[in-house]
Parts: sequence; structure tokens; C-alpha cells
Amino acid sequence: MKKKQSTAIEVAKLANVSQSTVSRVFTPGAKVSPKTQKRVLDAAQKIGYRPNALARGLITNKTNIVGLVMGNIQNPFYPEILDKLTKSLYERGYHVLFFHTKNDEIDQDEISQFLEYNVEGVIMTDVLLSSSVVSRLSTHDIPIVLFNRYTQDSSCHSVCCDNYAAGKKIAEYLFKQGHQKFTYISGRINTSTSRDREKGFVEFLTQKGIKPIVEEGDYTYEAGYNVARQLLKDSNRPDAIFCANDIMALGVIDAAKNLGISIPNDLSIIGFDDIAMASWPLYSLTTWQQPVNEMIEETINILLNRVEEETTKPKCLFLSGSLIERKSVKILKE
Amino acid sequence: MKKKQSTAIEVAKLANVSQSTVSRVFTPGAKVSPKTQKRVLDAAQKIGYRPNALARGLITNKTNIVGLVMGNIQNPFYPEILDKLTKSLYERGYHVLFFHTKNDEIDQDEISQFLEYNVEGVIMTDVLLSSSVVSRLSTHDIPIVLFNRYTQDSSCHSVCCDNYAAGKKIAEYLFKQGHQKFTYISGRINTSTSRDREKGFVEFLTQKGIKPIVEEGDYTYEAGYNVARQLLKDSNRPDAIFCANDIMALGVIDAAKNLGISIPNDLSIIGFDDIAMASWPLYSLTTWQQPVNEMIEETINILLNRVEEETTKPKCLFLSGSLIERKSVKILKE
Repeated sequence: MKKKQSTAIEVAKLANVSQSTVSRVFTPGAKVSPKTQKRVLDAAQKIGYRPNALARGLITNKTNIVGLVMGNIQNPFYPEILDKLTKSLYERGYHVLFFHTKNDEIDQDEISQFLEYNVEGVIMTDVLLSSSVVSRLSTHDIPIVLFNRYTQDSSCHSVCCDNYAAGKKIAEYLFKQGHQKFTYISGRINTSTSRDREKGFVEFLTQKGIKPIVEEGDYTYEAGYNVARQLLKDSNRPDAIFCANDIMALGVIDAAKNLGISIPNDLSIIGFDDIAMASWPLYSLTTWQQPVNEMIEETINILLNRVEEETTKPKCLFLSGSLIERKSVKILKE
Repeated sequence: MKKKQSTAIEVAKLANVSQSTVSRVFTPGAKVSPKTQKRVLDAAQKIGYRPNALARGLITNKTNIVGLVMGNIQNPFYPEILDKLTKSLYERGYHVLFFHTKNDEIDQDEISQFLEYNVEGVIMTDVLLSSSVVSRLSTHDIPIVLFNRYTQDSSCHSVCCDNYAAGKKIAEYLFKQGHQKFTYISGRINTSTSRDREKGFVEFLTQKGIKPIVEEGDYTYEAGYNVARQLLKDSNRPDAIFCANDIMALGVIDAAKNLGISIPNDLSIIGFDDIAMASWPLYSLTTWQQPVNEMIEETINILLNRVEEETTKPKCLFLSGSLIERKSVKILKE
């Protein structure tokens, strides 16, 4: 049995005020005279009453809880996002109710939980969501911000790295170093991140009259390793590989090393994300750094300012990021 | 402005029952006749009323929220724990309110948040907590389970890998392979995990008349790399290194490779945790696998059964785990 908590009723009794006066004292912005406030606070302190965030949430409809849905936490990019998001939200007085989806796709049951816990908004990272999920949350007026994802019909707010532009820049960079045979190893093909990176990469090269090979990966180290094992045995193997994320690129590097292929002399590799491991000396991976801090800042701004701007259409932000040059790409000697 | 939610008052009006009857219908285990229940549920459905977990929490004192405090999420061991803990709790109808501590030590402000959100229990992983924090939570009768940590005075429940016994086994294993010069690279020295692994390792070797060297690390890749850079330049370098966690061991392997030292021929390395990267082919790290699933199971059992067993003293469980042999240790030829 839990110990009984002091209630607002007891505080009201002791301070000789009504229960609704006690509520007002603990509701930010509510009107109450300084004299009454002091009397209530003194009484509260005396009997150990603490205002309850959940109770306050029921009155003000503000729980200060944000739901966060995350899928593939094995990719080191996402723990970093979780870390930074939690800190930024905490600094603004918000807390994270964490959901890890069992499947790629978020289901109705999980949505029910958001509603039950009266979350003020939901941030979704690498998960798929159906239009029925979006409409159910919007019926209840709970804003969603997709982090590094967007829906084709723009029904949700979203904050993304400009994956398309980044794919183009990466192709241009490799092209300028004099590479000729290009391969793209994709992430899961149903993700907008992988599709856009591929689109930018392929478009740039096509304009130069080059047809890159596209191999299917799934954003895991194992996929990078296995795809590269096959690919690099071929005598007509690529001289430059762009991987849809860093963790796959590390798999490609390891597969190449195992086959005795020297990086970057025989093969250039570029990743995406700039996870901590990319800078480890034996990898020293050239990669695209997503503008994580800016992305998080914008995500939170949209989520928390949403209340005042409900007439505006969903926002879709695309932020640039930048190429981090390390040692996995052969540099053109002039 | 948020849309107004249908309230229990409206449901009560429509169903022609009192508000407390509506509450009872939505409170698990509360008494209400089947006929009344049907009338209330029909009314609720008609006007789109949904029971609110937070409101129910105020009535039943059950919010089904567990607070989780995690520090160093950059060590891949912890995202895995987060993932599995969240899943296991979700299966039992509980949700995780996630806290990432700014500092090593959890502070009073963070504790206030647990109280405000009326969490039913708190799980703490790699964070330090003072006795004042423990006593404050226990005043409010909120159980704490330390995950892979314990307090010297056993004031909290805790579920640990038996780090002391594992340290001994690791020393024994290396000793039996014929190694002679041993080094331990510690984690952060104020952690029980690192101290116990060291104690077991040193004790076993001391009994064999060997005095191992102890170097200070901090559980990061960079520490492993930097300590090894210094250590391995010495002509009297060790032939076996035990690292307090895997991520440091990977740093040691990379430093050794950079110095042209062959693993395992010239140097044997053992880690601790069995993170996913330990099995990557270019590392193939022999390590101690913590019994993660069992540890999570026990943690949740203690937390959720705690209510019925409040008279018992704090539980301290030590679970074994097992050695995973890969290719980073030189095997004795007979």
C-alpha cells in the first residue's frame, strides 16, 4: 500500500479557503491575492502537500509530457537524438514519455496510450505511420512532429536534414575527385531518408552521363558488410560507395579490409550521420553531418509553439548539414 | 487552444448516473453492476469520452508510469537496456518516463519531477545517487531499483551482474592460457561495476603470486585508445589486458593495430558487456556477456511486486553471465 498523500482538501481546510482556491495557487497564471497565496503555501508546507503535475494537467490540460516514438535504437544516431531531445525538453520544463515500437509501424494501441496520458505532443523518429494514425491524433488535436521523416501528403509537421541536396553534394564531391564507378547502398527502402539521399545522388550523376548501381541495404552494419562482400568480389567493382548511413559504411569498410582492399587507395567510402564511431581512427569515415542541434531546436519549437499557430498548415523544414572530410575518400592529385 | 475533451460529468449526465459511478466503471476492480456499466460505456462511446490514465492515477494512485534514469547513453550497452526495459514494461502495461541526468549524480530537482508525476517506481542505471535522494524517495514510498549498481549500505534494491565473480573468472581464463603480464583498465573509479570487476581480477591473480597493473579509464572508447597508446609503447608491455567494458576494449584493439601489434598473437584483450560491436568481424572481441534479459526481468519483478512485500529488506541480486569466446585472446597450445 502506498502512503496516503496530503490532499488539496486538507490544505484548504487548514488554510480556511475553498479547494478551488488551493487549485488556483498551484496553477501557473491563475489569479489569487498575495495574502491568500501565502496562507495556502504555508498550510501546504505544514502538512507536506505537494502539487501534483498530473492533477494540474487535468485542470490546465498541460501535462508537460511529450511522447517520443523511436524505432531502431541500435543505430547509434538515435541514442544521441534521444539524449539531446530529452535535455532540450527538460530545460523547457517538459518530460519524455518514451515509446519503442515493436514494429516498424506505430499501431492504434500505442496511439491510445498517448491519448490516455494526455501528451501535449508527439515526436516520431524512424517509424512509419499510417494516415489513420495521423488523423486520430489530429482529431484529439495532439500535434505530431516527424523527426527526419515526412509524409508524402504533408499532413504532419516535419523537420528533416535536406537528404536530397546532401545526396547531390556527395555525388558531386566524389565526382570531382575523379571517381568513375559509383554505388549507392540504400537504407530500408520504405524510408524517405534513404529515398531522398538516393534521388539526389543518382540525379547528379545521371546529369554527368553516369549510371550508378543501387544496392539494397537496411541501415544495419550487417547489411553493409554483406552487400560489400558480394559487391567487392566482382572484378568490375565500384571505386566509390555512398552508404545511406554510417553504421552500414563501417560494415563496408570492414568487408573491404577483410578482402585486402585498401581504403581510400582502392576504394572510397562516404557515410551519412556522423556518429561518434565515424571519427574512430581506424575508420576515419568521411560523412555527411546532419545538423542535429538545429533539427532538435526546430522540432521543439514547432511542437511547443503549435498551440498559438493552429491555423497554419503543417510545416516542413529541410536543413542542410555539411560534409565532414576524413580519410575514407581518395583525394584527386592534380 | 486545445479542443475541450468530453468529461466524466457529461457521461454521467447522459447515462443518468452520478460522476462517481462513471469513475468506478473506469477503475479496474471497482464494483459496479453490469447493467450500469453498459449504460455508462454506451454514453461514453456516444460522446467520445475516453478514460484518462492520469485522472485514473489520481483516484487509484496507479499511474502505470515508471521513471528511468540513465546517464552515459553513448555506451551502446545502455540503449540496448533502454530498448528491452521499455518493451518488458510495456507488455505489463507500464510506461517509461525517461530521464537523462545532466550530471553523474541525480539531483533533488529531478527527484521532485518523479514525485510530481507520481511514478510508481524508479529504475536507475549508471548514475550516482546520494543517501538523501534515497531517503526522499522512500519517504514517499516510491521504490527504487538500481540496475547494475548497488549502494554500500544496501539501502536500495539492486540487480547486478556478479561483477566480482566475473572478474575472477576472466583472470582465471587468461591465466590458464599462459599469460604472465596482466593489466586492468578501469571504468570510472567511483562505480561499483568497475571496482568489483577489478577486485575479482586482482584477487585471483594475487593468489597466484602475480601483481597486475591497474590503469585508470572512464568507460569510453577514447580512454581505452589513449591508455593503450601509452601502455603498449613500453617495452615491458602486458600480454593480456582486461577492460572494464567493451567500448574501451575496442579502443585498445584499435590502438594496438595502429602500433602494429597483432591481436591475439602479441596481445590478448577481454572486454565486458557483449555489445553488438564486439561480434563485428574485425574486432571479434572475447568478452563477458551480462545476463541482460534475466537482469531486466528481475528488476521489473522487484519493482512491481514491491507493493505486496514492503516489510522485506531491500533485495540485492547478483546474476552470473558467461564468457563469450571470440578471437581476441591467444589460446594456449598444448
